[in-house]
Amino acid sequence: MILPPHKTSFHAQHSAIGAHSSFTLGMHGAPGGLALEKGSPANGAVYVGTMVDDKITVMPFFEHMNNSEIARFDHQNQPETCHDALTVLSSEEITRDYRFASDHFISEGIHFEVISSFGPLPDPSQNNNTINKRAACPCVFARLTVDNSQGSQTKTALFALGEHGCPMPIQEPGHFTGFLFGNGDLGFATDADVYPLQCFDLSKAKKPDGTPLVPRFGGSYGFMMDVPAGECKTMDISLATYRSGKATLGLEMPYWYTRYFSDLHEVLEYALHNKEWYFDQAAQRDAELDASPLNDSQKFLIAHASHSYYGSTQWFEESGKPFWNVNEGEYRMHNTFDLTVDMLFYEMIYSPWTVKNVLETFITRYSYYDRVRLPGYNKTYPGGISFTHDMGNHNNFSPKGYSSYEISGIDRRCFSYMTHEQLVNWICCTGVYMSQTKDESFLTRHLNTVKDCYTSMINRDHPYPSKRNGVMNCESSRCHGGGEITTYDSLDTSLGQARNNLYLAVKSWAAYLALAELFKQADETTLSKEATASAKLCAATVTSKWDDELGYIPAVFENDNQSAIIPAIEGLVFPKVMGLNDAIDPEGPYGEFIATLKRHFEAVFRPGICLYPDKGWKLSSTADNSWMSKICLSQYVARAVLGIDFGDEQAAHDEAHMDWQIFGSTFNACSDQFSSGKAMASLYYPRIVTNILWMSE
Amino acid sequence: MILPPHKTSFHAQHSAIGAHSSFTLGMHGAPGGLALEKGSPANGAVYVGTMVDDKITVMPFFEHMNNSEIARFDHQNQPETCHDALTVLSSEEITRDYRFASDHFISEGIHFEVISSFGPLPDPSQNNNTINKRAACPCVFARLTVDNSQGSQTKTALFALGEHGCPMPIQEPGHFTGFLFGNGDLGFATDADVYPLQCFDLSKAKKPDGTPLVPRFGGSYGFMMDVPAGECKTMDISLATYRSGKATLGLEMPYWYTRYFSDLHEVLEYALHNKEWYFDQAAQRDAELDASPLNDSQKFLIAHASHSYYGSTQWFEESGKPFWNVNEGEYRMHNTFDLTVDMLFYEMIYSPWTVKNVLETFITRYSYYDRVRLPGYNKTYPGGISFTHDMGNHNNFSPKGYSSYEISGIDRRCFSYMTHEQLVNWICCTGVYMSQTKDESFLTRHLNTVKDCYTSMINRDHPYPSKRNGVMNCESSRCHGGGEITTYDSLDTSLGQARNNLYLAVKSWAAYLALAELFKQADETTLSKEATASAKLCAATVTSKWDDELGYIPAVFENDNQSAIIPAIEGLVFPKVMGLNDAIDPEGPYGEFIATLKRHFEAVFRPGICLYPDKGWKLSSTADNSWMSKICLSQYVARAVLGIDFGDEQAAHDEAHMDWQIFGSTFNACSDQFSSGKAMASLYYPRIVTNILWMSE
Repeated sequence: MILPPHKTSFHAQHSAIGAHSSFTLGMHGAPGGLALEKGSPANGAVYVGTMVDDKITVMPFFEHMNNSEIARFDHQNQPETCHDALTVLSSEEITRDYRFASDHFISEGIHFEVISSFGPLPDPSQNNNTINKRAACPCVFARLTVDNSQGSQTKTALFALGEHGCPMPIQEPGHFTGFLFGNGDLGFATDADVYPLQCFDLSKAKKPDGTPLVPRFGGSYGFMMDVPAGECKTMDISLATYRSGKATLGLEMPYWYTRYFSDLHEVLEYALHNKEWYFDQAAQRDAELDASPLNDSQKFLIAHASHSYYGSTQWFEESGKPFWNVNEGEYRMHNTFDLTVDMLFYEMIYSPWTVKNVLETFITRYSYYDRVRLPGYNKTYPGGISFTHDMGNHNNFSPKGYSSYEISGIDRRCFSYMTHEQLVNWICCTGVYMSQTKDESFLTRHLNTVKDCYTSMINRDHPYPSKRNGVMNCESSRCHGGGEITTYDSLDTSLGQARNNLYLAVKSWAAYLALAELFKQADETTLSKEATASAKLCAATVTSKWDDELGYIPAVFENDNQSAIIPAIEGLVFPKVMGLNDAIDPEGPYGEFIATLKRHFEAVFRPGICLYPDKGWKLSSTADNSWMSKICLSQYVARAVLGIDFGDEQAAHDEAHMDWQIFGSTFNACSDQFSSGKAMASLYYPRIVTNILWMSE
Repeated sequence: MILPPHKTSFHAQHSAIGAHSSFTLGMHGAPGGLALEKGSPANGAVYVGTMVDDKITVMPFFEHMNNSEIARFDHQNQPETCHDALTVLSSEEITRDYRFASDHFISEGIHFEVISSFGPLPDPSQNNNTINKRAACPCVFARLTVDNSQGSQTKTALFALGEHGCPMPIQEPGHFTGFLFGNGDLGFATDADVYPLQCFDLSKAKKPDGTPLVPRFGGSYGFMMDVPAGECKTMDISLATYRSGKATLGLEMPYWYTRYFSDLHEVLEYALHNKEWYFDQAAQRDAELDASPLNDSQKFLIAHASHSYYGSTQWFEESGKPFWNVNEGEYRMHNTFDLTVDMLFYEMIYSPWTVKNVLETFITRYSYYDRVRLPGYNKTYPGGISFTHDMGNHNNFSPKGYSSYEISGIDRRCFSYMTHEQLVNWICCTGVYMSQTKDESFLTRHLNTVKDCYTSMINRDHPYPSKRNGVMNCESSRCHGGGEITTYDSLDTSLGQARNNLYLAVKSWAAYLALAELFKQADETTLSKEATASAKLCAATVTSKWDDELGYIPAVFENDNQSAIIPAIEGLVFPKVMGLNDAIDPEGPYGEFIATLKRHFEAVFRPGICLYPDKGWKLSSTADNSWMSKICLSQYVARAVLGIDFGDEQAAHDEAHMDWQIFGSTFNACSDQFSSGKAMASLYYPRIVTNILWMSE
């Protein structure tokens, strides 16, 4: 969509699939550019514009600097300040058209696009080499069009990066001109008829004067292309990253793309040869989002989320097989399970095989069995299987059965164990995966794990069956006397404590439903009935926690907690996307439970409780820390499951959230944790793609 | 030597040979640590100290920070400020003993040493695998001794890095404990009995409480070792870098060490197994410098130069053979030839085979043939062979026959061609190499190149033999109408212009002498005589330029130049180290020339001309830009060739230069270009090892 003029300055990630790289730009006057394996924007400059005679006009995609790199070499002949010599286009002179798979910056006579193509990611076990190679290519594109059809003198189109390190220039005239940098792991190239440009700072850029070589020094480099008066010309640029060899430790794996490409040059060249396919795919995505009946703020949020998601993806090869990893934004933790379960809805559309891949990695390497304790007592009882919070961080994989995040001995504080939550997450993901794929062989292979999950769920309820109420009452022995937390680790008790938590209880209900469904699919009739009984018990307990005095269900069923939380309803998403329509039918077997949750939502969704003054959603009444991904998810549940119509207010909510991203996370692209509209944690984050659900409403 | 208490805070590089890496520390309150392929200190923290109960005392090897990384995860529970909780030792509490191959920091009960062992580097073609592997191992060591023999409670010795990125911890109890980071390219390990430590900030470091895992997150990590009361214990640490696969572009090469080690873990472990050998070798170097009759400032300058030299070295493998490269400090240009010729004296002691290696690379890949022009005229005449300024930069090798530095069309300014100077440099290096090695097969193989060099020298003098005067009068056609410069590229004309330059003329005389000697060794009697005649012509011309009115020889023989320069005498070093004693004998064939240069030196070496008020040497009377490497070289020539005795003033000169490094280049270890005692260019530089000549006086 075309953005309003005052909302055009913010960073967006533009990322290839599975390369953990991003060409990030869009915020005016800020650093950006191409980076590999970095949880934040590149620290470089991107120069896009035109040169007429000696006058250089560029878009504002760099941080203004007053000193030139050349002073390090030649201190006696320091040039005029470097960026002062450039004419920088102002916000008013640039129109930004932000789309699902592209991003357009349009000024008079200049159209600059960045294209990060995506679509259904083929399962590599099911397709031929041509398709797999195309899918794995770690590349995005830029396209610069300079329209000089009305002009009277030649304009030179200019594209360059600065502050990205000294490059290796490659020149195969008329065919391939490019620059490799960052240990040869990053680069860009064009197939257009250009002259290469390299200089200490862009203000010194000039067209070659016939001397045989451009300088091979200086940190600003790129391409110049003459556009004669009366003509309009386009320069297509491939931008890619390529890390060769073993890219990880702990579990040693190369990137998947290394099986198709032997180096970066090959990637850049292949991308240029096949650019039309990528452009077509991106145009399809753009058209889909355009055509959806959502409002512009919603479209923005979906596009913005998707842009940031791919920057976190990382596709490895493990012993000849694909290994899928999504990094946790700025934290770069691997396959953080409480993100996986939220990104599930997106991945079920574009790459169901990666959902399976991650679930299986959790089984084979990142599951464990524990014992449990009742709070306040030392005695332990049988626990069961669960899964780790993550699989490591920063390309370092943690040992079998351990995350990099969870620490023993912490009582319900950030970095404690999330044993119960991750168990629920595995079950819910598997339930959705099976419902949507009918992948019988998966279920057959992992039926024992599913059974272990059910045992583990009820053991965490209470050691004595007669005392079970369907809700988590025990703590994992891994906590060493401390207590578990939920994914909402940095919030207060209302969402942070796992035990007796409303949010987790409703999600547990969904997990029991999913187990019942999985057992049914596996013809395990008895277990299916038992799991259904557990779901009923859970629903009854939650329903019973309604507090007439408060007028809603308190967030935690102990210690007189009185917090009001929106994510009470979050867990309802799973039966919805599994197609378990009975379960969410107000007239169905859980009708009272559903009705109670709807009443709860309506009660807490009020200004001063769970609504910020700007109409942004506040997840908990007692914490000023609201997560965009979870807001999007609860919005979907409220509308699609509970049938709530926000009427005219809907657009106001969406606009507030759009503004949070644009004004509250300007530098960090799409972020998750907001405090009164300002992103302050979980920056540059993939999780917000949960809002893809809106496109199915 | 033990440094005076107010001169202990400065960075030193501690580097393995040929790995282009450095463990840099020593400056108080500044960032430092381990870095790979970086022209400046690492941006990390080094924590060295002890913990008693919860009290942590550390040396000041980090930049004080008030915010903890943990705030990015858990903004609601931000801890107390991180470094405020540490007790940091003050300058007064630390004694620094800075040596040739080690660096010692001693405080009460703590002795911390960094050992960067070096010695004669074996020629890999001449030795067995064991010796070659040991030589190539890309490792340095740290050794922390905590003496608790007088104590009454356990002290815990502490060594950790911070701000180096998230690591992969490796724990093989009782044998190997280590951390790998930076894409697994950097790491450190110990064989001592320690517990691993990892936390968000060091103030939160604590001994494990029995829980099964340390956290696997947080950017401060290292080792803790209990030292019970009454004991003294030592922890040895290996610190290494390892870059696998192709490390360069343009000319694609892996590091040489990759043929002996398959990954970083192997390097770290091998180093620990063989540590005694490295420690012994370092102790030999330390003892040699200690035993020399030089004053402490001179010893400091030699040690400091050597420390920085190794950080710039880079040993590759090209098609199964070694390829030696020295990077140009902060600029990271490869084998900059005007540095090679100054570092020659150091390399002839420790690695004559690398001198040969570089000279041959210049022949095979980085030589070219040009034509020449007389200044002011367009007509060209035959020129001849010369060599490029460098071979590329930042691991990107430039194309055959081209440097990355030189640009056509610039008239006697920074980045112009250095054709004549590099020709002289190749000849002088070859002369010294041949005189000291008698490597006949080298001369036989390259005799044609030597002959081409002579032709090129005289063609650059003047196209018409009758007009030759032994001095460069022509400009290379590669300048495209501009004029050549010398290595003193950022100085004014006095040292910056090549043509008719006094400094380069004397060096040309040395080149003619070297050619005569090379031809003699090759039984080319006629050519030898001709080259001698050229030397005589050159000497006569230089002698004739004495200006009675000025009282010295002007720096440039044209345009009424009146600058006074010390490096007039620089070129005399070559006959001296080639053993051509006749040539430098005041009674010998060049007696008048030598005497005139001595008179010149004595005339210009005066306060206000070529001496700063602090007694530091000022290379040119007209430029406030004095280069430490060249000062060291001219000092050697003044004393060892011209027989000048600086008497009591010698110590004052040396102390001034030591202070330039300590107070004027505190952060950047050993630097070259100083403006009134402040380093402002050529930082973190290898070239200063030319001062190894002092040890031969």
